[in-house]
Amino acid sequence: MPSALVILAEGAEEMEVVISVDVLRRAGIEVTMAGLDGVKPVLCSRDVKLVPDKSLADALKAGPYEAIVCPGGNKGSQNLCGSAVVGEALKEQEKAGRIVAAVCAGPTAFLAHNIAKGKKMTSHPGVKDKMKGYCNYLEERVVVDGKVITSRGPGTCFEFALAIVEQIQGKEKAQSMIAPMLVKM
Amino acid sequence: MPSALVILAEGAEEMEVVISVDVLRRAGIEVTMAGLDGVKPVLCSRDVKLVPDKSLADALKAGPYEAIVCPGGNKGSQNLCGSAVVGEALKEQEKAGRIVAAVCAGPTAFLAHNIAKGKKMTSHPGVKDKMKGYCNYLEERVVVDGKVITSRGPGTCFEFALAIVEQIQGKEKAQSMIAPMLVKM
Ligand SMILES: [Cu+]
Repeated sequence: MPSALVILAEGAEEMEVVISVDVLRRAGIEVTMAGLDGVKPVLCSRDVKLVPDKSLADALKAGPYEAIVCPGGNKGSQNLCGSAVVGEALKEQEKAGRIVAAVCAGPTAFLAHNIAKGKKMTSHPGVKDKMKGYCNYLEERVVVDGKVITSRGPGTCFEFALAIVEQIQGKEKAQSMIAPMLVKM
Repeated sequence: MPSALVILAEGAEEMEVVISVDVLRRAGIEVTMAGLDGVKPVLCSRDVKLVPDKSLADALKAGPYEAIVCPGGNKGSQNLCGSAVVGEALKEQEKAGRIVAAVCAGPTAFLAHNIAKGKKMTSHPGVKDKMKGYCNYLEERVVVDGKVITSRGPGTCFEFALAIVEQIQGKEKAQSMIAPMLVKM
């Protein structure tokens, strides 16, 4: 069964975390929602508390994963930017030619850890100025450049997750999920 | 501050729960995510665990709320259908002329508790046959009939939550939230 790692940091945008995890699981991908600071419930950006499946440390021992996903949220993405463990995991993932994915302010973690430099990317409009000198910045809802998948915000997260599904499980699988979830593509 | 109650049952669709809670909070509505069975973490339909803010029993003592929201999820909505406490809360809400809202399979709880009978409604296509003799069934992504707001699935949840915001906080507020969240309307 293909696998994915969604990194859950305090202050993460809960919609972006949950849509990513849920859609990938619906696609038959084994998803680990890993707590950056351990296994305690994580307080997200709008005060929703999510219980991690594992600590990030344990999750990384159980890897590798077809995809590593960095959700957004202002404080959440700052926490991803500030974590050396996240940086190492992303660098190893990139070096191995596996998928790195980020949404909203999540792509700032790529900048902070020097991942996917010069690639086609997007992000939340609010961090565009930060990102645009680092990458080939596009304003599309989802941008796929090889193994680098980025997207813009909570409202683009279904499309973001389906782009990850398409890379891992194929286009037919991804398209078969649109109607049952009532996603507007 | 206006308030809303989102009922969280085991087996709820986690995206529907979290999108509703998050979008309403972004709109300045005080949201209580209330655990049907207490305050323990609730296992949702795709194995995400959400920590309730309060038990439903405590949350109802602290009411009333401008809106009560019933998320979907197959097992989650069955749990709402089977709960006498949910039935009483919805009946009281309807009698007082306040908002009752449901998404996906959530509207089956209206049917089970005899709420909003004959009103214009929608639901997930999978429970259409169950619903269509009970209400004036429409296939739109969100249906608003007075204080009854219904919608179709995870992928319609941003529009669903924004329709609730529009009723409570006004159209201007709801529309101001579309761009920052990157919602495709
Ligand atoms: Cu559902």
